[in-house]
Amino acid sequence: MATIRDVAKLAGVSVATVSRVLNNQGYVHEDTRKKVEQAIRQLNYKPNAVARSLYKKTSKSIGLIIPDITNPFFPQLVRAVEETMYEAGYTVLLFNSDEVLKREQHIIDLMVTKYVDGIIIVSNTIKYEHLKDLSIPIVALDRVISQEIPSVSVDNYEGARKAVRLLIGKGCKKIAHLRGPKNVFTAEERLRGYMDEMNSQGMETFVYAGNYELNTSMVETMKLLTENREIDGIFAGNDVMAVGAIKAITKLGIHIPDQLKIIGFDGIELGTVITPELSTLKQPIVQLGKKSSELLLNYINGNEKVLRHYVYQAELIERDST
Amino acid sequence: MATIRDVAKLAGVSVATVSRVLNNQGYVHEDTRKKVEQAIRQLNYKPNAVARSLYKKTSKSIGLIIPDITNPFFPQLVRAVEETMYEAGYTVLLFNSDEVLKREQHIIDLMVTKYVDGIIIVSNTIKYEHLKDLSIPIVALDRVISQEIPSVSVDNYEGARKAVRLLIGKGCKKIAHLRGPKNVFTAEERLRGYMDEMNSQGMETFVYAGNYELNTSMVETMKLLTENREIDGIFAGNDVMAVGAIKAITKLGIHIPDQLKIIGFDGIELGTVITPELSTLKQPIVQLGKKSSELLLNYINGNEKVLRHYVYQAELIERDST
Repeated sequence: MATIRDVAKLAGVSVATVSRVLNNQGYVHEDTRKKVEQAIRQLNYKPNAVARSLYKKTSKSIGLIIPDITNPFFPQLVRAVEETMYEAGYTVLLFNSDEVLKREQHIIDLMVTKYVDGIIIVSNTIKYEHLKDLSIPIVALDRVISQEIPSVSVDNYEGARKAVRLLIGKGCKKIAHLRGPKNVFTAEERLRGYMDEMNSQGMETFVYAGNYELNTSMVETMKLLTENREIDGIFAGNDVMAVGAIKAITKLGIHIPDQLKIIGFDGIELGTVITPELSTLKQPIVQLGKKSSELLLNYINGNEKVLRHYVYQAELIERDST
Repeated sequence: MATIRDVAKLAGVSVATVSRVLNNQGYVHEDTRKKVEQAIRQLNYKPNAVARSLYKKTSKSIGLIIPDITNPFFPQLVRAVEETMYEAGYTVLLFNSDEVLKREQHIIDLMVTKYVDGIIIVSNTIKYEHLKDLSIPIVALDRVISQEIPSVSVDNYEGARKAVRLLIGKGCKKIAHLRGPKNVFTAEERLRGYMDEMNSQGMETFVYAGNYELNTSMVETMKLLTENREIDGIFAGNDVMAVGAIKAITKLGIHIPDQLKIIGFDGIELGTVITPELSTLKQPIVQLGKKSSELLLNYINGNEKVLRHYVYQAELIERDST
């Protein structure tokens, strides 16, 4: 009698893919689906009912893996996911990974044993190869992991260009960029946006290394303004770094926005709490959380058959720092 | 043949209490335990093995109910709980309740059906009567719900007195209190500390209503300083309100700390981000999360037999606002 392995072999796909087709779960390419269905017919494969029901075991819960809830970008995002899931009758298992790959993999293994129905993950370290054999739906949030994993994110590149254009439009002549950490998707995209916009305007670029954190950003800004006294505009890779920069600028006695203008990225609440209030490219954080949840639910319920990537535009918010 | 109900009746306790004794789970008073054990012997009660194993079904997960993860006090707390639980092999189901009693009750019901092994709850609305029939361990965090529910909290009253004493020591003559919301345990305790310390020093009291939020606090501070121009010290019921107050004070052109000193409560990171940096009574947030998790694990594993209440002292942190 034919087994699931025979079907996989004949169709030239993984066992996980056959599982996905059998359970009508998640994102299988239409061509692949047809190949699998043909192999099933050809071999007269009958899935084992007990195994299937065991496989189908559902917990009405999903796993949410984020780098760190104490990073001010995440509370709103987590809240939006939790609310959308709660309304749909699902509970949320929350994990902080610090983007340590080993931990992420352990968390994912753990979730599989808990029969979670799906996973939403925010990660720069996890790659498609770590996820491709999983038989549960996964949605990448905030960052695109691979074309094969559905995702919900923001157009960081275009947002960065908008930020730089605003500074130029306000008369800034020397604009520096406090970049986010290397190999982090959002940081690389925002850097690329800065470089392209500056180059297209024929302006000199000044890039300083930050890591999305406040204290490093203060130190880096001090250095930046000591080395280049003529800098009159800063595009910070995120709001947290912008807030650090503002602390440093204020300490140096430089007036914002008269002598120096600064703009961030993210639109976290912190930007409205400080003085001067921070101009920024606001991500639709709540919408990102909501959409990723809805997308995951659609995959779980089999309503979503094709791979989807949603990209939102960040909104330019002008406050007192530009 | 005797049932669990017969045992409960004879011992004069609830069925849930008998369950707790049978499963050696959670906080049953020693006297009660003895009464139940005596009734079991007297009736020769034999618990049904299947029912018991069903009852004992465990998910190696716990529920964590907080008011709102976007309140800056909670991310650190949630992270500490998640880490401690993760290390112990437990996952965390996170819920935002907004302290709406109906929602809290629904969440608890949901968690019972999910066989969570225990619950950590931060709530002002839930009362002992809503929890007393639950057969799973519960720990109250940040706030004491009742003497019958184990808890981990901070001495808000004493912390408030310390805050007021600092302002007095710095020469403040007219000290106002921006209080937190009514009927909220922490807010009431901090108000009581303010009143007692002021009264003991024979000083006039000025209490203004806040609700632990930033914007209301700005408005209230404007009102306060317009009505009482001679106020030279403010004890804000939490750091978020203190930050709102500082925004208002800065707008009014009043210099901190020369003309007016201000101190908050909580020790959230926000206080170090703003200018001037905020003096505060720092709660050991990470320790609170960790201890509540350990306490819950002890109850789950049956190591903790008696009801415990842990109270931590808040630490006075002087920064630039006093």
